[in-house]
Amino acid sequence: MREVAIAGVGMTSFGKFLDRSLKELAAESIGNALKDAGIGTGDVQAAFSGNSMAGIITGQESVRGQTVLVPLGIRGIPVFNVENACATSSSALHLAWMTVASGSADIALAFGMEKLYHQERERSFRALAAAADIESDTLSDGGSPFMEMYAEQVRGYMKESEATARDFAEISVKNREHAALNPYAQFRDPITAEQVLESPMIADPLTRLMCSPIGDGSAAVVLVRADAAPDAVRIAASMVRSGGGVSERESVSSLARAAYEMAGLSPADVHVAEVHDAASPAELLAYEDLGFCAPGQGAEYLRSGATRLGGERPVNPSGGLVSRGHPVGATGVAQIVELVWQLRGEAGERQVDGAGVALAENAGGNVGHDAAAVAIHILRAP
Amino acid sequence: MREVAIAGVGMTSFGKFLDRSLKELAAESIGNALKDAGIGTGDVQAAFSGNSMAGIITGQESVRGQTVLVPLGIRGIPVFNVENACATSSSALHLAWMTVASGSADIALAFGMEKLYHQERERSFRALAAAADIESDTLSDGGSPFMEMYAEQVRGYMKESEATARDFAEISVKNREHAALNPYAQFRDPITAEQVLESPMIADPLTRLMCSPIGDGSAAVVLVRADAAPDAVRIAASMVRSGGGVSERESVSSLARAAYEMAGLSPADVHVAEVHDAASPAELLAYEDLGFCAPGQGAEYLRSGATRLGGERPVNPSGGLVSRGHPVGATGVAQIVELVWQLRGEAGERQVDGAGVALAENAGGNVGHDAAAVAIHILRAP
Repeated sequence: MREVAIAGVGMTSFGKFLDRSLKELAAESIGNALKDAGIGTGDVQAAFSGNSMAGIITGQESVRGQTVLVPLGIRGIPVFNVENACATSSSALHLAWMTVASGSADIALAFGMEKLYHQERERSFRALAAAADIESDTLSDGGSPFMEMYAEQVRGYMKESEATARDFAEISVKNREHAALNPYAQFRDPITAEQVLESPMIADPLTRLMCSPIGDGSAAVVLVRADAAPDAVRIAASMVRSGGGVSERESVSSLARAAYEMAGLSPADVHVAEVHDAASPAELLAYEDLGFCAPGQGAEYLRSGATRLGGERPVNPSGGLVSRGHPVGATGVAQIVELVWQLRGEAGERQVDGAGVALAENAGGNVGHDAAAVAIHILRAP
Repeated sequence: MREVAIAGVGMTSFGKFLDRSLKELAAESIGNALKDAGIGTGDVQAAFSGNSMAGIITGQESVRGQTVLVPLGIRGIPVFNVENACATSSSALHLAWMTVASGSADIALAFGMEKLYHQERERSFRALAAAADIESDTLSDGGSPFMEMYAEQVRGYMKESEATARDFAEISVKNREHAALNPYAQFRDPITAEQVLESPMIADPLTRLMCSPIGDGSAAVVLVRADAAPDAVRIAASMVRSGGGVSERESVSSLARAAYEMAGLSPADVHVAEVHDAASPAELLAYEDLGFCAPGQGAEYLRSGATRLGGERPVNPSGGLVSRGHPVGATGVAQIVELVWQLRGEAGERQVDGAGVALAENAGGNVGHDAAAVAIHILRAP
């Protein structure tokens, strides 16, 4: 397998864009990524399109990527439509990575796009619910099971650790501070821990300001063979796995170990990370599962300030899912876009000084007791 | 890239199964494929799930493959949900092939599943329409544009060749004769050319008995590294490409040339083929585009009897899309299942004697003037 580099990245702002189509959003992110890579539409040799919910929300299924790519003139190449709930575009990225790594193509595009806002809010909720088994009992009330699932996990964690609801609120506050420095973020106004704790309860202990919002957006990356791009960020590890651990946390930690091994790196080498904080407490659990701190020490690690911009290992400098936003199918690649900017020193006011190794963790969906998909990518500066 | 073999195949009968879920259908085909390969669920190292229309028809999106695989105990591996309209499961197969060929896994599962029948027929039609750009003008009447698109192509072909509506009817008759010998086929009762020509006109010159039906079903294959399965059918070429030719026909013919080159074979080497007769005349065009006869000679080739069972190169021995059935996301892998049976000499009454090389052509969707995806696989006996 050949080494693969990321030659170009692009994304849209994340937010509520009722007047912009999936096509428009994706065209913007893809255009930015191609321009950043210095290539034209005719140079792309394979494309992987990630979208999780348009079948239900917009009614476009089957050929979602082609509806974006053909009008842009990206034609006559293999195009694959990929779906894996919140890990959708990480999955597209992994397959694009495999395509270049295996020598099947020299230049591949991976992008994610999602419109979750719809005039009929019921559609958005129905689509989100479809990231679990719609025939299962957990959905008998017709609602989305996810925040309740997260809440149950968090309540268990609180019993066996010293983490408190205030810690979770502080994660929201920290990430909002990061988002305030990110022009692509959906929510940028500062918030206080009190505001987070006093916002409406969604599923105890998760308040609204601890939960990722509905959002629209798109993100894209151009992958090339590394030997053709000596100055581009490298993909040191790319792994996707459906659950199957005894718990979702074990799924993440075992996949992280495999990714570190693939990269020849350890948690201590990671300077900056984007993690899947679909609800804020998940970030604290991720510190432990990714090996940034010892098991059970997540709250202490947070309180140390290590994961804040200016700390030893900033986490979610983009603002994360709760503040940067979480248009499901776009999130995985958006994490990568942020980390490439960090590794290039192009992250502006939220730049992590001296970032040389970065990790992205993206997880999505739930079937039975399994995370439907977990993706971990490790990137390094050239 | 390593050579890849097909160690196991399985499928359900195709038909109308309002009382069977996608999960049940897929579990049957996957179970059959694993049993055929002599492996257990724990042996599968990566899985690619193909489904094109469940988001609209059943409401299950995002994690369709996992909803099938987790209950079967296939967990803790990479799972990808893949979609490419009628070429959906061929696309899943191609990515599974790449996974084994690249050394990312030694054993990979690819399957397709589709339920097109629904109590609300409107859902089925809306889902089929989503295999084109739903924002395009061709869909302004709210219907499916595909049979009209095919008909327009066929009318143009009739002007520049000697093919007649009777030829197209004879294709339906031939393939129904094949389907009569296939216990997995959706329609098995003999029909005459008169019956085909007198069945209701869908889009001139396509009558109902020239058009593929709505259907439900699933098909699955297990891929392994060839050196581990010396007696298994080989994948000599695996190619997927979105359109981009000046016409869809040029897209097919150029991809076929690339596939023959990859396999080191020529059209003359092909003993048996399954081709994408979404409407019967497409089979006749495929004879030309795949190089089985010269351009413009499709009708003559058909009339020679070459493509009938017992002829020099039987085409669609399964009955093809019109008679075997066309549950969209299952069709591509079902073609492969049929061809593996043919290459093993396990096709029963419809066995093509001495079949050593087989070709599958699968095409899907339409965006702009492009086929959204065309897939060609060439298989050979070990």
